[in-house]
Order: sequence, then C-alpha cells, then structure tokens
Amino acid sequence: MHLEEDCIGKLPVADDVLYGINTTRALHNFDIAKERTDSLIFESLIQIKKSAAIVNHRAGTLNEQKAKLIVAACNELLLGQHQDDLVAPAIQGSAGTSVNMNVNEVVAKSAMSLAENVTIQINDDVNQCQSTNDTYPTAGKMAILKALPPLLQQIDKMITTLLDLAKRYTDVLKVGRTQLEDAVPTTYGNSFHAYASLFRRDVTRLRTAAEALHTVNLGGTAIGTGLNATDYYRSHIVDALNTTSGLDLELAEDMIDATQNTDTFVTFSSAMKVLAVDLSKFCNDLRLLNSGPQAGFSEIRLPAKQAGSSIMPGKVNPVIPEVVNQVAFQVIGQDLTISMAAEAGQLELNAFEPIMFRDLLQNERYLTNAIDTLVRNCLADLTVNVAQCEKNVHHSAVSATVLNPYLGYVETTFLVKEALAKGVSVQTLLKAKKLLDPDLVERLFSPAVMTNQVPTTQSRFETQR
Amino acid sequence: MHLEEDCIGKLPVADDVLYGINTTRALHNFDIAKERTDSLIFESLIQIKKSAAIVNHRAGTLNEQKAKLIVAACNELLLGQHQDDLVAPAIQGSAGTSVNMNVNEVVAKSAMSLAENVTIQINDDVNQCQSTNDTYPTAGKMAILKALPPLLQQIDKMITTLLDLAKRYTDVLKVGRTQLEDAVPTTYGNSFHAYASLFRRDVTRLRTAAEALHTVNLGGTAIGTGLNATDYYRSHIVDALNTTSGLDLELAEDMIDATQNTDTFVTFSSAMKVLAVDLSKFCNDLRLLNSGPQAGFSEIRLPAKQAGSSIMPGKVNPVIPEVVNQVAFQVIGQDLTISMAAEAGQLELNAFEPIMFRDLLQNERYLTNAIDTLVRNCLADLTVNVAQCEKNVHHSAVSATVLNPYLGYVETTFLVKEALAKGVSVQTLLKAKKLLDPDLVERLFSPAVMTNQVPTTQSRFETQR
Amino acid sequence: MHLEEDCIGKLPVADDVLYGINTTRALHNFDIAKERTDSLIFESLIQIKKSAAIVNHRAGTLNEQKAKLIVAACNELLLGQHQDDLVAPAIQGSAGTSVNMNVNEVVAKSAMSLAENVTIQINDDVNQCQSTNDTYPTAGKMAILKALPPLLQQIDKMITTLLDLAKRYTDVLKVGRTQLEDAVPTTYGNSFHAYASLFRRDVTRLRTAAEALHTVNLGGTAIGTGLNATDYYRSHIVDALNTTSGLDLELAEDMIDATQNTDTFVTFSSAMKVLAVDLSKFCNDLRLLNSGPQAGFSEIRLPAKQAGSSIMPGKVNPVIPEVVNQVAFQVIGQDLTISMAAEAGQLELNAFEPIMFRDLLQNERYLTNAIDTLVRNCLADLTVNVAQCEKNVHHSAVSATVLNPYLGYVETTFLVKEALAKGVSVQTLLKAKKLLDPDLVERLFSPAVMTNQVPTTQSRFETQR
Amino acid sequence: MHLEEDCIGKLPVADDVLYGINTTRALHNFDIAKERTDSLIFESLIQIKKSAAIVNHRAGTLNEQKAKLIVAACNELLLGQHQDDLVAPAIQGSAGTSVNMNVNEVVAKSAMSLAENVTIQINDDVNQCQSTNDTYPTAGKMAILKALPPLLQQIDKMITTLLDLAKRYTDVLKVGRTQLEDAVPTTYGNSFHAYASLFRRDVTRLRTAAEALHTVNLGGTAIGTGLNATDYYRSHIVDALNTTSGLDLELAEDMIDATQNTDTFVTFSSAMKVLAVDLSKFCNDLRLLNSGPQAGFSEIRLPAKQAGSSIMPGKVNPVIPEVVNQVAFQVIGQDLTISMAAEAGQLELNAFEPIMFRDLLQNERYLTNAIDTLVRNCLADLTVNVAQCEKNVHHSAVSATVLNPYLGYVETTFLVKEALAKGVSVQTLLKAKKLLDPDLVERLFSPAVMTNQVPTTQSRFETQR
Repeated sequence: MHLEEDCIGKLPVADDVLYGINTTRALHNFDIAKERTDSLIFESLIQIKKSAAIVNHRAGTLNEQKAKLIVAACNELLLGQHQDDLVAPAIQGSAGTSVNMNVNEVVAKSAMSLAENVTIQINDDVNQCQSTNDTYPTAGKMAILKALPPLLQQIDKMITTLLDLAKRYTDVLKVGRTQLEDAVPTTYGNSFHAYASLFRRDVTRLRTAAEALHTVNLGGTAIGTGLNATDYYRSHIVDALNTTSGLDLELAEDMIDATQNTDTFVTFSSAMKVLAVDLSKFCNDLRLLNSGPQAGFSEIRLPAKQAGSSIMPGKVNPVIPEVVNQVAFQVIGQDLTISMAAEAGQLELNAFEPIMFRDLLQNERYLTNAIDTLVRNCLADLTVNVAQCEKNVHHSAVSATVLNPYLGYVETTFLVKEALAKGVSVQTLLKAKKLLDPDLVERLFSPAVMTNQVPTTQSRFETQR
Repeated sequence: MHLEEDCIGKLPVADDVLYGINTTRALHNFDIAKERTDSLIFESLIQIKKSAAIVNHRAGTLNEQKAKLIVAACNELLLGQHQDDLVAPAIQGSAGTSVNMNVNEVVAKSAMSLAENVTIQINDDVNQCQSTNDTYPTAGKMAILKALPPLLQQIDKMITTLLDLAKRYTDVLKVGRTQLEDAVPTTYGNSFHAYASLFRRDVTRLRTAAEALHTVNLGGTAIGTGLNATDYYRSHIVDALNTTSGLDLELAEDMIDATQNTDTFVTFSSAMKVLAVDLSKFCNDLRLLNSGPQAGFSEIRLPAKQAGSSIMPGKVNPVIPEVVNQVAFQVIGQDLTISMAAEAGQLELNAFEPIMFRDLLQNERYLTNAIDTLVRNCLADLTVNVAQCEKNVHHSAVSATVLNPYLGYVETTFLVKEALAKGVSVQTLLKAKKLLDPDLVERLFSPAVMTNQVPTTQSRFETQR
Repeated sequence: MHLEEDCIGKLPVADDVLYGINTTRALHNFDIAKERTDSLIFESLIQIKKSAAIVNHRAGTLNEQKAKLIVAACNELLLGQHQDDLVAPAIQGSAGTSVNMNVNEVVAKSAMSLAENVTIQINDDVNQCQSTNDTYPTAGKMAILKALPPLLQQIDKMITTLLDLAKRYTDVLKVGRTQLEDAVPTTYGNSFHAYASLFRRDVTRLRTAAEALHTVNLGGTAIGTGLNATDYYRSHIVDALNTTSGLDLELAEDMIDATQNTDTFVTFSSAMKVLAVDLSKFCNDLRLLNSGPQAGFSEIRLPAKQAGSSIMPGKVNPVIPEVVNQVAFQVIGQDLTISMAAEAGQLELNAFEPIMFRDLLQNERYLTNAIDTLVRNCLADLTVNVAQCEKNVHHSAVSATVLNPYLGYVETTFLVKEALAKGVSVQTLLKAKKLLDPDLVERLFSPAVMTNQVPTTQSRFETQR
Repeated sequence: MHLEEDCIGKLPVADDVLYGINTTRALHNFDIAKERTDSLIFESLIQIKKSAAIVNHRAGTLNEQKAKLIVAACNELLLGQHQDDLVAPAIQGSAGTSVNMNVNEVVAKSAMSLAENVTIQINDDVNQCQSTNDTYPTAGKMAILKALPPLLQQIDKMITTLLDLAKRYTDVLKVGRTQLEDAVPTTYGNSFHAYASLFRRDVTRLRTAAEALHTVNLGGTAIGTGLNATDYYRSHIVDALNTTSGLDLELAEDMIDATQNTDTFVTFSSAMKVLAVDLSKFCNDLRLLNSGPQAGFSEIRLPAKQAGSSIMPGKVNPVIPEVVNQVAFQVIGQDLTISMAAEAGQLELNAFEPIMFRDLLQNERYLTNAIDTLVRNCLADLTVNVAQCEKNVHHSAVSATVLNPYLGYVETTFLVKEALAKGVSVQTLLKAKKLLDPDLVERLFSPAVMTNQVPTTQSRFETQR
C-alpha cells in the first residue's frame, strides 16, 4: 500500500494495481453489487482515450512522447491486458466519474510503465479536452451499439427458424382460438409466419431506436459548452473515434441537449421492452399449445431438454420458454428502472446514467442469450402434432361460420348450439336437416375453404339475396 | 359574472355558482380530464369543516353565529345539496389547495346565504386552524377508508362463493398441472378452496394497510408544526371529526413526518396491487380451464353472458374474467403511478397527492365493481365438467408417481415413457408386466390414494428397503 | 321495455334506445367505471360500417336499399345524432365485441327507422364481411391516429415558445449544475434551446410510432384468414375507408399477424411514455429553478396562477408544472397497463385491446391538455431573474475550470478549495497570488470564454507544454 | 467426461464435479446470465435435505447408513465445502427443479464418496418425500428470511443516526418548503426526526410482510396433496427443519394454496418497494439541501467522498445518495418483475419463482449495502450549515403566516406581497406601518413561536373577534 492524495485528502492505495486513489475511493463508496462496469463500456472509454491522445497530439496540445505512450497503453488494454484493474462498480454514484477516472488512472500508470521518467497526468493528459460528462455517455452509447448486432443476429435466426416451421407446416390445419375459445380454423403455417412477421418489426424497432444513439456529445466536456476542449479537438475527435472503434458516430447539433437529456436511452430501452413483451406472448403460446401431454392442448411438441420433476417420473416441462418468459419480465422491470432514472435527471446532467447503462447492457445480453437458447434448444426441434390438430379442427363447431352467407348468422347460431348440445358435428346435423346441398356442405367444410385459401367470392352470398 | 380579487389579481366569476375565485382559477389551470375530485374527498373535507367550526367555537375563536351557519351549510352539503358546485378537478397541481378552497368557498357562500349581513371569511373562518396540507391528506385518508368496506364485502362474497364451489366439487378429481404439464391429481374441491385461502390473505393485507391510514396530521396546519392552530383545536379536532364521520382516526405522533411522507398510501396501493395480481392469476386460470368448448381444457363451464362474436355464430367467450384481468392491469399500472408520485415528494410536502388519491380511489372502486361482476355473473353459476375431468385423470400417465415407493423413480420413469409411447395406460402396462400385485395397483390408482386423501404411510416404502 | 333474444336467451331491452340486446348485456356485465368507449372509436367504427355498406353493395352482396339506409344512418351518427345510444363501456371484456355490436345495433335500428318494412340484420347486413376482430382494432388505430395531431400541435407550440425564450435569454449567464452541484457556466439561451431540441425528438418518435398504426387488418375478419369476406370487399374496403375517414390506412401483408399482435400499440404507448419522462424532467427543472422566492434557486419566475395556500398568505406555487408531472406519472403507469395487456394476448387474438385503447386515447388527451396548460399558463409568461443568475455565476468557484490549461487540474483544485474556504472569488485569489497575468485572468473569466462562445484554441494549452 | 443417462437420454458429464446430468443439462439450457442461484437458497435446500434424511430415517423409510451419509454430506456442504459444485443458474426455467436436482446430485455423490459400496439415489433417497415444488419455495422463503436481519440492522442504524442528527440540530431553524416554495419555518431537529419516523414504519412493514413467509408447504410434494410423503414425514419435517436452520417456520393450513400462490412474495417485494420509494425521496432531499456550494440551497453539507469531476477542479458531488437513488430505481423495477412473474403463475404452480427469488434476494442485498454506505459514508458525517439556515429563515416573508390571527389572511397577503416587492422584511414593514404592537411583533417572529414550540393559544385570536 502507498498513500495517494486528491482534493479529498490522503488514502492508502494498493501497490499491485494500476488504478489509483479515485478508483479506490469508488470501491469504498459503492460496495453494492460485486459487479463491475460492463467491459464494453471500459473498452469504449479506452478507445476514446486513444483517439483523444491522437487528436490532441495533432492539435499540438499533447507532446509526441506522451501521446505515443497513451496510445500504446490503450492498445495493450484493448488487446486484453490489465483487465483486472478495470474495477469501477457497475452500480455507482458519481455519474460515471469513477469509471472515467478508473480508465484515466490505468491508462496513465500503464503508459508511464512503458517509459522512464515521463509523468502523465490523469486529468491534464489522459483526460485532456474531456469530461466524464461527455466521455461516459459516449462510451455508454458505443457499448450499447456494440452489444446490438449479436441480439439482432439471434432475432434473425429466430425469424429464419420460424419461417422454416411455417413452410414445413404450411398445410396443417389448426383451430383458431380467440379469447381462448375455439374460433374459425387457420394453419400452423399461418401461425409460425405471424410470429416471424412480429419479430421482423422488432428488428426494425431496435435499428430505429439505435440510430439516435449514434449522436454523441463528445467535445462538449462538462455541460456541452465544450469548455477546455480545443477547436481542433472538437472538429476531429468523432472522426478519430470512428476510425478507432469502427462505429459510425456523429456529433450532436445541440450539445447542451445531448449532455443533459437521456431520452434516447429510454427509447432504446422501450424497443427492448416491446421485444420482451412479444417474446413473452410467444412463449406463453408455445407453452399453452404444448400443454399436456394428455390433458392439455398437445398441438405442438417442444423438444425434451431435461427431466421435469424430482418426484414425477417421466414429466417433461417447457423449460426453455419458461426461462425466456422470466428474462422478458426482467427486461420489462429494468425498462421501468431506466425510465425512472431518466425522469430523475436534473438540469445540466443526469446523474443516474450508470444504472441505465448497466440495465440496458444487461437487457441486451439477456435477450441475446434467451433467444439463443430458445432457437437452439426449442424452436429448432419443435414439431407439430398433426393428428391432434386435425382432430381438433374436425370437431370444431365454430367452423359453421362458413355457413353465414347461406343461412344467415341467426340460423347458424341455433345450428351450432344444437350441434354442441347433441355432441354431433355441424356437418352431420346439416345433412340430417337437409338444409343445404350435400356437395356444397362438403365443399364448404373443406380445409381450403375454411382457412380461406380458396377465396370467398360474391357468389357465396347470392343464394340468400 | 362578477369580479373577485385575490393575491393574483381580479377575475370574473360566475354568478350562479357557490364557488369563487380560487375554484375558478383551478378550472382554468387544470382542464385536463373532465373529471372532478372524488365525491368522498369532498364529503370528508366538509366533515372536517363542520368539525372545525364546532371545535373553534368551543375554543372561543369562532363566534356562535358563524359557527352555526358553517355547520348548517356543511349539513346541507352532506345531505347532497350543491354538489354541482364541488368542481375542483381530480387531476390538478396545487397539492389539493384547489379542492380545499373549493370547499371553503362553497361552505362560506352557502353559510352566508342562510343569514343576512354576516360575513364569513373563507380562510379565517371556514379554514380556521387549518391548512390544505393537513385537511387534504386527512380527507384523502378518510375517503380511502370509506371506500374500503364495499371492496372487502365483495371479496368476502367471492370467498363464500369459492367455498361453496369447493364443497360442491369436493370429490371431483382434477389433473394437477404444473408448468402447464400434467401432474399428479387433485380435486376441484382443493382448487376452489385454494383460491379462497388466497383471497383471505388479501382481506388481511388490505385491513393491515388500512390501519396506518387512520393516523392523520390534522392540526399540523402547513407543515406539521401546527402554526396558527390553537392548542384547544389540536387537542379536540380528531375526536370531533370521529364523531362527525363515524371513523376512528387518531393523531400522528410525529406530525412533520405525517405531513410530508406518503408511504402509507404506497403501502395501501401495494396491497391493492397484490389483490390485482391474485385476481388476474385467478381469472387466467378460469379462462384456461374453460377453454374450448371442443379444442381446449373444457374442465369448467363459465356461464354464457353474451354472444361472443359478431361473425362466429354460437361462440361464447369468458368476458367476465376478461374484464377483471383488464381492471387488474389498470390497478397495477396505477400502483406505479402512485409509487412515482410518492417518490417525487420533496422536503416538507408531497405536491402530488391529488393523483395518488384519484388513482387510489379509482382502484378501490374498479376492484369493487370488478369482483362484483365476477361473483354475480361468473362464479355464482360456474359448473365443473365432471366427465371431462374424469377422462383427463384416468388418462394421465403422471399418476404413476404413486409407484415411486415401490418401483423407484428411475424404473417408474421408463414405465411412464413406455406407456406414453404406446398410448396405453400405466395401469394396463403394469398388469401386462406383472410388476406389482394387481390388487395393489388397483388400490394405488384409486382417487383417494392419488389425491392423498388416504394418507401415505411408511409401509408404502417398506417393499423396497 | 321489450324482450329481445340472442344465443344466450331472452332479455328485456329499453324501448327508447336504438341499441339492442348485445349492448344491454354489456351494460349489465361491465358496470365498472361509468365511462363509455371513446367517441373517436365509435366514430371510426361508424366510418367502417358506412364504407363496408358501400363496398358490399358494389360487390353485389348487399342490395341497394339496405346499403343506402345503412349509409344514411351512419351519416346521421357521424353528424352527431344518437350519441346517447353509443354506450358500450370503455372498460370491458369481449375484446371489443360489445362496442362493435353497439354500433351494429344502433346503425341497424336507425337505418330501419328511415324506411318502412325493411329488415336490416345487425350481423348479416351491417357487419357483413366483418368481424369485431378486424373492425375493432382498425377503429382503435384510427382513433389513436385522429387524436395525435392535436398532441403534436401542442408540442410544436411548446417548442416555439421555448425557442422564443432561448432567443430572449440568449446571453443571460446561468450556473451550470451537474449532480445538483455548481458546474461551469452556460446561458439560459442554451437551456431553453436544449429543451426545444429534446421535444423535437419526441415529435419524431410519435410520428414514427404512428406510422405502424396505419397498417390495418380490415378484411381479415375473425382471425385474419378473411373467412366470409368477399374478394371484392377485401380488395376495396381500405380505399373506401380512406375516402370516408380522410386517413391514409393500408392493408397488412400478414393478416394473421396483424390480427393477433399488439406490439404497435405498445410501441406507440412507449413513445408517449418517453414524452412523459421528458415532460416530467422538464417540469422538475422548472420547479427547481423557480424555487424560493427567497430560500431557493429563484433563477426563473413562473407566472402566478392561483393563491398557493389556504393558510400561508402570499404564497404562490408552481401549480402548472405540478399538474404536468402528475399527468406524466399517469401516462407512465398506463404504459405499464398497456404493456401487460399486450403481454397477456393469447394465440389468435388479444382480448385486452379495450383497456389498451382506453389508456392510449386517455394518454393522448391528457398529454395534449397538459402541454396546452403548460404553454399557455406557464411558459408563455415565464421570465428569467437575470440579477440572481448573474450573482450566482459571479460567485461560482467552479468557473476556475477555465484555468486548467494554464495551471493544470491539480493546482487549480487547490486554488478552488482555498477560495471556497476563504469565501473569496477565485479571481481575487489569482490576483493576490499573481499566478497569471491579470489581463489574461480578466479575459478568461469573461462570460464569452466561460460559456465557450469564444472557442478554445490550442494556444490556451501552449503555456504549459 | 463420462456418460450419464436420464429420461431424456445420455449426456457427457464432467468427471471432476459432484453434480450430474440434471445440473449439466441446466447449464446447457440456461446460459443467460453467468450468475448462480443465490448461496442462501443452496444453503436452505441443503438444510432441508439434511432434515428430511433425519426424519425419513426416524420414519423407517431411509436406512441408517444412508441417512448418516446424507447428513454428513450436508454438514460438509453447510460448512462451506464443494461450493463450486452448486452451479444451477439463477435465471432458469424448470421452476427450480434444476436447483433442487443440483443439490440432490451433489449431496448424493458426496455422500457416496464418504463410504464404499453404498448407492444413494438422488430421487428416492436424497429427495425422499420431497418435490421441487415444496422444497424450492420453502428454501426461497428461508433464504429471504435469512437475508432480512442484515437489512433491518442497517435500517436501525440509519434510524439511530437520524435521531442523533435530530438531537444535535434540534434548535436549528429551517425554512419549511412546500411545493418547493418557501413555507413557514421548522427545525432540522424536526426534519431528521421525521425521516426516522418514516423508516421506522419501513421496519414494521418488512417485519409484517416477512411473517407470512414463515408459512411453508413442505410435505406437500408436487402440488400440495403430499403424495408420496409419509404421514410421519409430514408431521415432523418442519420441526426438524427449524432445528436445523434456527428459523421458526410453520406448516400451511391450505397446502394447495401454499404451493400454487406467490402472493406472499409480491407482498414482501412491495414492502421493499415502499422502502425504496422512501429512500429515494430521502436522498432527493439530501441532494437538494446539499446543492451548491454557492448557487444552491447549501443548508446541509454531505461529507466529501471523492473528487467529483475529471475536468472541474474542486467539484464534489453527493455520490452516496446518488447510488442509493439508483438502487431504489432498481428495486422498484424488480418489484415490477416480481409482480409480473406472480401474475403469470398458472394453475397448480408458478413456474417463475426463480426470477422472483433472484430479484427478491438481490433487492434485499442491494438495499442492505446501499443503506450501509448511506449511513457510514454520508449520514454519519453530515453537518448542517447553520448560518445559511438562519439567513434563509430570517429573510422569509412566509413567516408572516403567524399574523393571520391578528390581521386576517387577506390583509396579511397584501403585506407579504408588499414586502417581497420592496425587498424588505415583513417585520420592518409592520413596524413602519405600526399595525401591531412592536413587542408583539418581536414575540411573534421569535423562533419558538414560528415553529410553534410555544403553543398557539386562543388568546392569539381574541384581538380580532
């Protein structure tokens, strides 16, 4: 241990770490959750430090030796060294200052270790032309953007799998169910395709919400006015960062706004919430259609993934959709946390970005992993129980809806009630009552007509009018 | 119209109303929702005004004539007169001042109309020894307490109805379902009883949460210090109000705390949220067990309450549980609103009590009405489809769990898998394989043993050990 | 009263109303909230009925007399007649069937009243080629779209007002505050502009979210397969409806998806939630900057709108921002309700659209009215207390940040600590210590430099390197 | 690696771990969050296994050798061995089966390692008379109860600290602020005491909510009927578990209810939510009163805990309250997650207990740690800026409220307006106008009268009537 000093006073700091007094204080202050700041935020901050050093050198405000050492230190960190020293807690006060200073300290110390007799200041050199208030939200946006492609990739896989299922079961009839009650028939092809259509919109929503995250306030320093950032730096830092990171960021037009408002985070969180709602509805459907095996719907069969019970032999449960449901609930809960954190922002800064970034990144990762297991361990091997589906459709009295144009809604209603009461099919009853030509009945109750694959023509209405 | 003046300036006020400039300003300022403050809040404020006049007269700070007129005016209002003049908006800023002043104005004007040549001041007389900051939260608590017994009564009716159902279907077997998959059997008697047990706890929770609402800050005036309220008033007002209102309120020990903190409202809201969660789960179960009539669980039959479809003849839907689900979602959403409003309180007062009171009272009323329709229009005529239940239990392979003590979990597992694959019952398979004495098999698969009404004894384990 | 009959049985129906047995049952079943379905939903459904009659006549499935009568009845309703008969409750089960049937009944009865001896069937004629499951969500989307322009107009007014304020106070210095602590200075021009920038994004978000609501499932009938809707109807109904309504709707590509999924409602609700979060943050800032008049920030003065206290004379409160805060909490709570309702959808339909539509429309209207009062009664007459602002900036030790490039962060830190401890300004201290050229100090602490209106050049860093 | 087999099929299992195929499958299926099930749940399950072995041996259904080995293995685990083998993911499907089986497997394998040639079955022996559906919720409740005392202890410390502050600053005047505007005065003694009163209710709420968690369904096995649990086991297991764990659990009266309903978890979560709301309001107040140091309220001084900015020298921020705010938002968000998980329960079981337990335990730990840092790093060294407080009170025009009984509300209003407009104190104005006896004015504006420590007597009203 050695003593370091800052504006608060002196504090012992461990000798075998690259961070210093600022980070040490943060560890004392924020011992909440044994969870470090997300590695993507650290990576992004280091990319900012590297880019800043390059730009500041070009601007003439950082000498070549210092710039080279800072860049070298950043490169080492970006290659994975010294990760044990990036320790600022994920849940923290300070509006991110502890994370920014953790990086400043580690970069400065490791840069100095690369040469002799060079002093690199954490604030004046590594943090030159910067403030936590511009680097931290910029790094947060970068991290969120970096965590998005894996999520989109998993959604795409899910869509592909659903379209495969739609093709495989295109002609398998299914009793439609509205308000959980038997309705007119559809096909499993239709159903799987509808989920695919749903998740396609989620991809669009996430992409749209992510667009706004490309706008950053880098160069705005403390509150967006850009005080202490040189003109050169402010004109060049975003380009330099794009080169370093491979992202496509751009500078905000209104830097004060971009520094104090966090609406773009709430918007992105909301897009994930919608995805979570959609996933949960989908998994509820999967679990319901899979219910049984004997006393449930039993129309689909999810692959067996583990023994379902410690006491009931042979029981198998839909454990994969179940975990996805729970991830969805977590994402929806954390969307609330993020919304409250945004609402609590005051004046020129929102001090609660740390919990926003933590929850946003966690939501992205959880959703990615949840969809991954859903596709690999559930959808890929899902099968439809065709026999059960056919039996259900065959029995269904609601198919009589097809008779409306011939008999009218009221007469058909009484026919359906009679069929249900007698426990016979509507077709049987129709034949017994000789209400319609038997060939017409046969045709009307064909799968193609009931699912409207043979379109309804005006002629169907002509008999009655 | 005539002009009135206050510290803001002059304003035209309608001639044919009993309220004055304060209320008129509120109507201009808060034209949000075409919804007046809840009538129970107005009633409670009037009871406070009446009680205050009585106490202040006894204290010697309000003369007899004024006191009598104020009391007479309050009595008229409590009997239902002049309700059209109680117009302060439900959704409003001002922390309730507009509601309190609406009442002060209407009481003063109607009191003055009862005599000639008497001037009754809204602030100095009607509002004497009071502030919005103690009368309004007190009235809010009174209103919430008054709206509770109807809710508790409806829950009690629901519990009674459920216990009736439990008795009626005490011996009807039901396939247990865990994670929506077939599990060991139970009875419908058990199931209905379990819901009754659940809602009993809700009654307890609501009662417990309501207890804290009996503690009021009346006499604390602006911020709890009681400035401008006489000692006599502060010692006697709560007793007087209990006499007037029939409630059982008591004075807070820490009046500063009681004025600024709204945790007891959040607590009461949370108790309603738990009830909403419970109701929604219950209604989800009802809708699921009622699903069909042909391609669903069809184990219970909810009474038909209206034609279910404009196009599908004979379709009937579980519309009553559906409306309860939606009320539950609304209550849960408004619990969030209330929590956020409480969190937003600052320093010596929470300015957001209006939305809390509005949502708390709405939640109480909606829940009351929702349970009322659930009991009358759904549970009272619910029947169990015994034939379907028996068929389900008879088929169920999971009943083989009863064999664990004889065959062990692993061997039973393979038996179940074989039965499911072959589409035969486990009993049949057992007999074919002669694994156990046929009499024992018969006995084990009896309803009484499977639902454990004949208790499991140690002897069941002895064969294997 | 007269008896009517449907598939449930017979029921007395009032003689003096145009609705029939379906609506009457709904009133019995859903007596929750004394609140009718939103008038915009009724209007939109009537527009659908009118358009359907026109199209069905063209298709040859509805004769001319019936079509003309239905159109005439719809026109009367659209002109405001018979509104008292549009009574289906806002909070209801039935997935909207009660609303659709209410309209079918009223249209049929009023159409029949226009001629003699014509029978118009509610299901076969008025509802021809339709189902609640396509007309109701379509009407919901239409209603939400119709309620949007007034909201956008109010936001635009707010933006204009903010830009006016930004221009008026463009040069008024303001102490920046980050984490509620004094930070480097900015201007009130900057601040008002930043809010304008924020709300501009809200406009974009609402417009983007509204786009998806233009896609409807009309013609899909019960579950999207379009059973019983003629080809002609399905090809022409949306065009006809656009003519009738003046909207720009289009048919969904995947009609099954469009019938069962409600993600576009959650998305639109989320956009309103973000607006609510933004408004609440803005109003929190207004209330904070207005705090005082003596013991607070007192940097801005909101116009006095009503007497603030029944006990404290002369007190004035920020009642307009307060009501906006509460509307924001309500919108956020109802966003949760909407999300839960969407998540609860099952299989081919979401039965919980009624609460979604009710809350979405309420949120639109509340936000519209809240912003209206905010602009008219608060922002339009807001003034900045320039003297107080100047005093604050002049005192602020944090302005010393401008010295970093000259003295370095560490030395400046100790200077600031000393100034704060001694209660003198940093400028005074600098002069006393003769650390920098007095002219430079003068220049650095000029408003233009501190707010970075004179850009920071590299030369500022040269002294130290 | 070696192959193990279960009802799903064969799977390679690592050789160097004590868990088996069930746990291995869980790791494959639920790779969501790199987070294991909470150690308190594992500990509690092991205590259940140990107690069950003891009871089953006494019942004669588990032989002595097996029982002793199981108990010995459990003891080892309870002493901290083999923790690396307790790996079941925190976020998982399976309703806890994976956690229960993880423990069954590790106990069985480590028990077998303690002897030679003994086979201990995971289901028939370790899990004897048990099901996941009774052991897992019981362990969840035990864990939540175990994590509560540390939280209560921290709240108690906070209350003690607040009462110390109340005593220390009992006579320090403070401008009351309602709706953020200056109100009548109070003291810092009052304020700190009010927070203490608030948090005392939180202790009560948590204790009350925890009571219901003592009721367990152990012995109910799969769905509460208790199938396969012996009478002896069911009569003795809870007592045995109380001995093992030191807790005071009791058996539920309605075991079906206790197995399927999760309302007691939502209730406990709600109690934590209320605490979170209270903490957040408290921390908002701390940050506001601490705002400055120059351009804010500056009435209290929170201890400086770390340098506040990477760019603004000498800036210090309220980082400790900030982290508490964020923990509060997280707890409130996770309360929503828990509520949604409870609402999603179906029929005889709630499959979503894993996310409930994870979030409940996380909330308890986060709140414990957040309050710990709040007390140690913030409240313990908080000081009040007495000079600033006195200045604020002295200036405050609202103190004129004390004149109401003498001058009436209306006349006092105009006095206050005049004082504010002229920038003089009300006292000065009173003296100039000679409206009241100077001695009376002196007395009325004394701290003791203004904060009502000298009670208001009726005589104060006599002058006017």
